Amino acid sequence: MAELKKEFLNVYSVLKKELLHDPAFSLTEDSRNWVERMLDYNVPGGKLNRGLSVVDSYKLLKELSSSKKGAQLTESEIFHSSVLGWCVEWLQACALVLDDIMDSSHTRRGQMCWYKLPKVGMIAINDGLILRNHVPRILKKHFRSKPYYLELLDLFHEVECQTVGGQMIDLITTLVGEIDLSEYSLPTHRQITVSKTSYYSFYLPVACALLMTGEKLESHSGMKDILIEMGSYFQVQDDYLDCFGDPEVIGKIGSDIEDFKCTWLVVKALELCNEEQKKILYDNYGKKDPESVARVKDLYKTLKLQDVFEETRKRRTRS
Amino acid sequence: MAELKKEFLNVYSVLKKELLHDPAFSLTEDSRNWVERMLDYNVPGGKLNRGLSVVDSYKLLKELSSSKKGAQLTESEIFHSSVLGWCVEWLQACALVLDDIMDSSHTRRGQMCWYKLPKVGMIAINDGLILRNHVPRILKKHFRSKPYYLELLDLFHEVECQTVGGQMIDLITTLVGEIDLSEYSLPTHRQITVSKTSYYSFYLPVACALLMTGEKLESHSGMKDILIEMGSYFQVQDDYLDCFGDPEVIGKIGSDIEDFKCTWLVVKALELCNEEQKKILYDNYGKKDPESVARVKDLYKTLKLQDVFEETRKRRTRS
Repeated sequence: MAELKKEFLNVYSVLKKELLHDPAFSLTEDSRNWVERMLDYNVPGGKLNRGLSVVDSYKLLKELSSSKKGAQLTESEIFHSSVLGWCVEWLQACALVLDDIMDSSHTRRGQMCWYKLPKVGMIAINDGLILRNHVPRILKKHFRSKPYYLELLDLFHEVECQTVGGQMIDLITTLVGEIDLSEYSLPTHRQITVSKTSYYSFYLPVACALLMTGEKLESHSGMKDILIEMGSYFQVQDDYLDCFGDPEVIGKIGSDIEDFKCTWLVVKALELCNEEQKKILYDNYGKKDPESVARVKDLYKTLKLQDVFEETRKRRTRS
Repeated sequence: MAELKKEFLNVYSVLKKELLHDPAFSLTEDSRNWVERMLDYNVPGGKLNRGLSVVDSYKLLKELSSSKKGAQLTESEIFHSSVLGWCVEWLQACALVLDDIMDSSHTRRGQMCWYKLPKVGMIAINDGLILRNHVPRILKKHFRSKPYYLELLDLFHEVECQTVGGQMIDLITTLVGEIDLSEYSLPTHRQITVSKTSYYSFYLPVACALLMTGEKLESHSGMKDILIEMGSYFQVQDDYLDCFGDPEVIGKIGSDIEDFKCTWLVVKALELCNEEQKKILYDNYGKKDPESVARVKDLYKTLKLQDVFEETRKRRTRS
């Protein structure tokens, strides 16, 4: 695994070098230095789960199709699946850089958010666009001659549309929820998480690997449904950790309560609370002061949401 | 011309309706209403020169190739060239929505900037991404079966890379220029304007029309050079009007001096000024207070930049 990750990180260096000297962007020396710093700060610093899972998935699919356990990947297969893995990471970096501005976040992956750095500020918006435009450049350079090139472009575009659509619903739901908290419901929460997270985090890596094996995506809609379901559960866990997780471990200080977010926790709380508790929620949800946040967290504990989460976790892991 | 513009605006309504119900974005009713308002506010309110010029260029190219004056376009030709025209307008809307945030602009096209509206704010970033993702959706729906579909995708992507690259150089040059104004020079100014403006405003519309006629873009590099040159001159004019134009006419309140922009005016002033005048520039350029701005404008007048502009204008118009 450590070996795989090392090789994966090598591919990052190759791609970065290519992009910094890609004439498509006509960069000057100063702006090239900026882009390099921006890439190093935002692209490789996460857990790399999404990216590595393209390589892993491709390996598994190859074993399945050849019915040989432990099938070795060729150098080119490792390289190309890693490149697609990095495209997923690049797309995520774009989403995180921009979402952090929209959510007024402070920290990310254990460091300050990019836009929060001195001299960066709103330049981060254009940096997000650069990251986004790197993806088709990478695809063109390394996959143009592959028979599945057009399907790859379509896949990345489908996922991007879902992601920005999900972020849109998230933002608008929050505006509506600020006026009437009861607008938050499990179906809305699910729709946001499926679009905003499941597509790029769970479906995209496996779909990339599947295309590399020569399969058509439309023949595997069952797989898509399962991956979307996994993503939806992942977001429930993410919501839970935003509130109850250790900032040291999750790499950010949660602020979903302050930000009036439509989370699994608040939706469940609305479902389970009595009239008196509902008033506590309405009075304190979305307020910035620590006392209000503490009151909401206390209510979550009173409603035993930690147990409800534990049950959901067990049920989902079984199915 | 009025008839052409009316037909062009009809195509906007068609595209808007398709996009609002495009399942790719999985919109809810609330977010669909938001996107509609966002489109109406940001897409069709400009002069539409760039969009209309796809239709005009296609008509001219068809006349040229058939050597018949006043050749009539078929309904499908008008529709398809209008659709490409709107793709250019959509891409511009995306750039303007996001640039206005980065530049802290106040007004645009005679109205408040989108991000400045109550309740919009940083949601405008995601709106920009929605606009950007609309373009490939439009292209896919209306051009997927055309033989030049892939070239069209490549063209839009090439232009987008140049535009974000140009915006990057613009932003970074401004950071460097704030430390040392003498970094601003005519070659830097040219590089920014070519990437940031010429590509999408001048090259893209004609290149779209050319693809529609079945031509290959690489056979017409001379045309590209001319259009890039026109765009470069257009930006000189735009810089001039930002300072000396009537806000009522240009639809925005210029703020290039306050924003420390690398404009044609400041580059020319640096070229022409003596040591004493240089000090005035260094002391007052990029300051927000009206007195400093007035001092810079006075210096521009002392250096007779209006005459220099007039000469440039005549020279460029002749060539």
